[in-house]
Amino acid sequence: MKSVGRSVTRVDAVAKVKGAARYVDDHFVPGMLHAKVFRSAIANGWVKRIDVSKAKALPGVVAVVTYEDVPDHTFPTAGHPYSKNPAHQDVADRNLLTRRVRLVGDEIAAVVAVDERTAQKALTLIEVEYEEYEPLLTAEAALKPGAPEIHAGTGNVLGRGGYELGDLAQAVAESDQVFSDDFTTQMVAHCAMENYSAYAYMEENGRIVIVSSTQIPHICRRIVGQALGIPWGRVRVIKPYIGGGFGGKQDAVVEPLTAFLTTVVHGRPVKMEFTREESFIASRVRHPIAFKIKTGVKKDGTLLARELEIVSINGAYASHGQSIANNAGTKYRQLYRQQAIKCKSTSVYTNMPSAGAMRGYGIPQVMFALESHMDDVARELAIDPVDFRLKNVISAGYQDPISGVKVLTSGLAECLQKGRELIGWDAKKADASRREGMKRRGVGAACFTYASGTHPVGLEVAGARIVMNEDGSVQIQVGATEIGQGSDTVFTQMVAETVGIPTSMVHILSEQDTDISPVDLGSYASRQTYITGMAVRKAAEEIKAKVLDYAWGMTDIPAGAMDIVDGWLVYKHNGEGILPIGEVALDAHTNTVHCQPFTADVSNNARVNAFAYGCTFVEVEVDLLTGKVEVLEIHNVHDSGKIINPQLAAGQVHGGVSMGLGYALYEQMLFDPKTGKPLIHNLLDYKLMTAFDTPEIGAHFVEPYEPTGPYGNKALGEPPAITPAPAIRNAILDATGVAFNDLPLTPQRLIARFKAEGLIE
Amino acid sequence: MKSVGRSVTRVDAVAKVKGAARYVDDHFVPGMLHAKVFRSAIANGWVKRIDVSKAKALPGVVAVVTYEDVPDHTFPTAGHPYSKNPAHQDVADRNLLTRRVRLVGDEIAAVVAVDERTAQKALTLIEVEYEEYEPLLTAEAALKPGAPEIHAGTGNVLGRGGYELGDLAQAVAESDQVFSDDFTTQMVAHCAMENYSAYAYMEENGRIVIVSSTQIPHICRRIVGQALGIPWGRVRVIKPYIGGGFGGKQDAVVEPLTAFLTTVVHGRPVKMEFTREESFIASRVRHPIAFKIKTGVKKDGTLLARELEIVSINGAYASHGQSIANNAGTKYRQLYRQQAIKCKSTSVYTNMPSAGAMRGYGIPQVMFALESHMDDVARELAIDPVDFRLKNVISAGYQDPISGVKVLTSGLAECLQKGRELIGWDAKKADASRREGMKRRGVGAACFTYASGTHPVGLEVAGARIVMNEDGSVQIQVGATEIGQGSDTVFTQMVAETVGIPTSMVHILSEQDTDISPVDLGSYASRQTYITGMAVRKAAEEIKAKVLDYAWGMTDIPAGAMDIVDGWLVYKHNGEGILPIGEVALDAHTNTVHCQPFTADVSNNARVNAFAYGCTFVEVEVDLLTGKVEVLEIHNVHDSGKIINPQLAAGQVHGGVSMGLGYALYEQMLFDPKTGKPLIHNLLDYKLMTAFDTPEIGAHFVEPYEPTGPYGNKALGEPPAITPAPAIRNAILDATGVAFNDLPLTPQRLIARFKAEGLIE
Repeated sequence: MKSVGRSVTRVDAVAKVKGAARYVDDHFVPGMLHAKVFRSAIANGWVKRIDVSKAKALPGVVAVVTYEDVPDHTFPTAGHPYSKNPAHQDVADRNLLTRRVRLVGDEIAAVVAVDERTAQKALTLIEVEYEEYEPLLTAEAALKPGAPEIHAGTGNVLGRGGYELGDLAQAVAESDQVFSDDFTTQMVAHCAMENYSAYAYMEENGRIVIVSSTQIPHICRRIVGQALGIPWGRVRVIKPYIGGGFGGKQDAVVEPLTAFLTTVVHGRPVKMEFTREESFIASRVRHPIAFKIKTGVKKDGTLLARELEIVSINGAYASHGQSIANNAGTKYRQLYRQQAIKCKSTSVYTNMPSAGAMRGYGIPQVMFALESHMDDVARELAIDPVDFRLKNVISAGYQDPISGVKVLTSGLAECLQKGRELIGWDAKKADASRREGMKRRGVGAACFTYASGTHPVGLEVAGARIVMNEDGSVQIQVGATEIGQGSDTVFTQMVAETVGIPTSMVHILSEQDTDISPVDLGSYASRQTYITGMAVRKAAEEIKAKVLDYAWGMTDIPAGAMDIVDGWLVYKHNGEGILPIGEVALDAHTNTVHCQPFTADVSNNARVNAFAYGCTFVEVEVDLLTGKVEVLEIHNVHDSGKIINPQLAAGQVHGGVSMGLGYALYEQMLFDPKTGKPLIHNLLDYKLMTAFDTPEIGAHFVEPYEPTGPYGNKALGEPPAITPAPAIRNAILDATGVAFNDLPLTPQRLIARFKAEGLIE
Repeated sequence: MKSVGRSVTRVDAVAKVKGAARYVDDHFVPGMLHAKVFRSAIANGWVKRIDVSKAKALPGVVAVVTYEDVPDHTFPTAGHPYSKNPAHQDVADRNLLTRRVRLVGDEIAAVVAVDERTAQKALTLIEVEYEEYEPLLTAEAALKPGAPEIHAGTGNVLGRGGYELGDLAQAVAESDQVFSDDFTTQMVAHCAMENYSAYAYMEENGRIVIVSSTQIPHICRRIVGQALGIPWGRVRVIKPYIGGGFGGKQDAVVEPLTAFLTTVVHGRPVKMEFTREESFIASRVRHPIAFKIKTGVKKDGTLLARELEIVSINGAYASHGQSIANNAGTKYRQLYRQQAIKCKSTSVYTNMPSAGAMRGYGIPQVMFALESHMDDVARELAIDPVDFRLKNVISAGYQDPISGVKVLTSGLAECLQKGRELIGWDAKKADASRREGMKRRGVGAACFTYASGTHPVGLEVAGARIVMNEDGSVQIQVGATEIGQGSDTVFTQMVAETVGIPTSMVHILSEQDTDISPVDLGSYASRQTYITGMAVRKAAEEIKAKVLDYAWGMTDIPAGAMDIVDGWLVYKHNGEGILPIGEVALDAHTNTVHCQPFTADVSNNARVNAFAYGCTFVEVEVDLLTGKVEVLEIHNVHDSGKIINPQLAAGQVHGGVSMGLGYALYEQMLFDPKTGKPLIHNLLDYKLMTAFDTPEIGAHFVEPYEPTGPYGNKALGEPPAITPAPAIRNAILDATGVAFNDLPLTPQRLIARFKAEGLIE
């Protein structure tokens, strides 16, 4: 392959480095108004009285609206494809503004003013009187009989899931040993560089246009239509460059209210940009999840029985609903063979920020629990944890009995071998001296599997349109969004590869516009390269076929005897040049008889899935006295099938591992346990890793060719974030003999345990 | 028909009335630089020396370029489709900047500065020394042996054309009488409300983006590529709303230089907006043309022989070249039967503004000559001029022997009858008292024919893309440009009609962007409704077929048994509703098995033409003493086939007739006969008619259904401007007995002749 597999420079590299790439905030609209939200100061209760008269009277304030002014129906916000089947629809539990407040920061009223400062000032003039209920901040509190219902009729249970495969009781009975343990993960935030931001205005024909930092323009359009109660075609969503999403922008956070506000001010442009504080508390977070795991094994390390109980804290509103708990309860089945599995999951409403999609979608949580537990079991069985995994890993041929999806390729065993070598596993394991003294070293590993897209749970439609110019260069439009991950670059490579032209002759339109961009569900579920990539490939194949067919008419050389290489039509049998592609394209644009400019407008409904695999190997040094964990060496080894762009793929690994390191060691949103008020909601207090905190990260790939991928590829976007936490936890266990089952692995937590275990005084 | 044929409100009405429609000048780009052109002060010569050092030194000036800095190849500017055949290519006789100056206003250098005022000031600091040649301001001067060549090797002849059909000598010999006469028409300007304006910048990948007030985005892209010598796909042209074109913007006037200037300043945005003065002298004008006509007739009024000699003043550069003289020499053949025709035409270079396309494209000129001459002949034969025309008009069935195009429908005879009745022709003709005294009244008529697009001379490719939303509403994209004529509205009606949805469910994207808009040659030649309309219809048919086919799968009712009416799928046999189109579209967007959002991306190469017909009937009062001609009543009667939108069609007639009235009576660009310096180049001196000067204009239609039109329609955009001048001239002849053969019919000219004829002292 000529373009695929090469480290082509990002197509947006120069624009981004020079500051020329335009984000929402770079769009200047004359007469733009600014909106701010008046937020609840309490976590649970309702507004007895609100007085916005002083805010309305403030010069520069154009409109103030409250829960009394918005449509009284509810709507969902999750970035899922729509389903006509009510059972598959997202939970609609939210109004544009609310009188019943469910978290500190809930949206009660909104001010539209001539500038942000005036809007902000007007917020301080709104008077409100609450009736308060007890804040429910834990699953236990929310599920306690008699607890006030956060959403009426739910018993504070948002959803339940579960299944049993095989006969668990029998598998347990056949086990030589059964191990049980509990694990918990914490609430973290996406912290995209660009906060949630959008502006909306009305076209003169009454349609609403929203320019938004969103991962999901087409879905966002539908959600805004639902929220406002208008036909979805009356909404247009435009997505410029965006400064990161990580799943947080796979949710309609700011768009529905912003769209509503422009209708209030007769279509004038209204901008809403969250502050960093708002982005922390009033958008979406990663679900804190508690796991109970039971594992039955043979003495030789053969896994037999797995039982998993999942309690996921969903916060105040449904957002992605039960999907994330379901995903956590499902997507480990493709990792290890086992005779029987039983899983039960519950998503619980609490008076906390709403949890939604975040890189990994429940899998970092479940893999922390499972892969930590794997090490504990291996330790008990006195088997090397890598050997234990290798003994049980699923290989190609496994077909999931529930989803029906078959594993066609798995490089996991190879990944484990490679990681083992990279970190020098066996030598380090053998050297007991490393695990002595006050600074102890250990190695740890953890595996994961991750799906490519959401089939068969979710719809996987994607589209691509290619237009060829007179010189043979092309434009490519996709509905999938470049959100920093590099998808625009890999789509460019794919088109170049398939059409047979250099990447310099491919121009991708980075901006999505639901009025014209091919329908695509957006960027999430690590689906772009795999799902949208197939639509891109089909469009490119169609263009190539049209060029060859047209050239047949021009040259009388059968289309099948020709190929296109480096922008030239060549004889297939010997590569000899026939004519440049530009001559064919020019003729197709200008021939008075045969004129037919080449375009392809392809929609593809992908009904396949493929499992990416991989592992993290890490070496840490644990300072028993300070509780500090230093990551000395970390390698992620991925089977994401064929890698389209090694440098961009490494970039994804670097970013994901960094996120995983923060998840393991530093990040956590904290709340006052009495009031539910956030204690940490800015980047000073929230311990996001910077470049200086980040160790050298090894990014490695094994590359089996996945037949269902457009170019042999599988998911890569989310996987790198999954296993740093359990690998580090396992390395700490290796170094100190202490098993930590709760994230994050902060010095406070470590020191407390080291003291309890008698390692320090 | 439900939507076609109705006076649907313009889709852009509210946006334009409220000032929300965005034109080039409404686009704000941070850091925009402004360019101004340093223009020649002499009409003919060359620059011996230029010194731009003082201009460069002026603070705020970013760059100054001269003819020394531009690529040294020439390029064409005409808005014609490209042909690979060199013989069909436009004349490339222009550099981006020139040392050899050919008219007052020729482009020698350009300044780019931080603002317009600084750029303007810098122009005054440029020092230049010329060597001057004799300005050649008439065809006679230019064609005089030994005259300096404006373009080397041309002898000042830009092009020649001609043909003979039948045996002219024999037809003359068979004629009872032969009449000859000379006619001339003047130079006029388009005077679009919005001056020529564009800005350009470079994308970070090096592509050039031009936002321009152009009628021809796709052609403009090609011309800029040619001018700069870069692959055409490296250029992107975007067309926002534009404030009129009338053919002037069917030429790349400002775009090539603006595009070049952004490359000079490393891609920073550069704007060039012509002043009104520049729009007059440095863009394009209507060709002044001189005609010699010879007509042979039988005593009974049967036309036998026509000989036509055309000398067209093309000005300093080729622009549309010989095409306009050719068109004038060709497009009257479909009007009257004749035994033999001979035509000869010459286009001459002079040191005047370059003439280009203008509403009617040579036909207002030739019809002034021919239809004036028809009245003179009728008068000599003592036949009523309307009867004379009716005797000779071509009817359906005529096939042009040169183009091969067949007249399928002609309503001209009906138009003439209708006009005759509307004006009260026979009674007014019979009343001799009207033609007495110092204020005399007369009636006049004139006919025209006009083609719908350019086939078979030019390529006629057009494209349309339709995207259907989940609610069954659609977006339509075309490459043809809304330039004020209302094409966006009629395309909307066409889609609504064919798909079977209300126009409120059709949303047209008015902005063209060559990166994504379907390839279309643009708006000219009255082609949009006829040529682009067919692409729109095909796309809409495709969408409808997809909806019905999908619905078949949903309902098991055969597609052929269903229709779509008012947004509902209905049984064809009784109109009973089955389900709303939105339910089909929603399923096609969301069905996990059959998901296939409906789109259609159609390119159509039209190889048909159809002749529109019509006539003007006018009554005037001529004040012999003041020379003032008052238009008492004027009616245009059109056969443009089926009318898509009667109110918009009437608007086209009102605008075109108004333009024709100005052409007849007031408008003329004048030059100092020694130096070639313009005497009139602003809207104070140039006598453009205002609403107050315009009489009530009658717009009438006969509507034969043209089978080649997408909805039975033919051309309408340009025709209304063609015949007011000859009709008024003929009415003056009727009123006063004096035949005026030179336009415009100004009081000075009339009084001089009235004196010469002894009508006044």
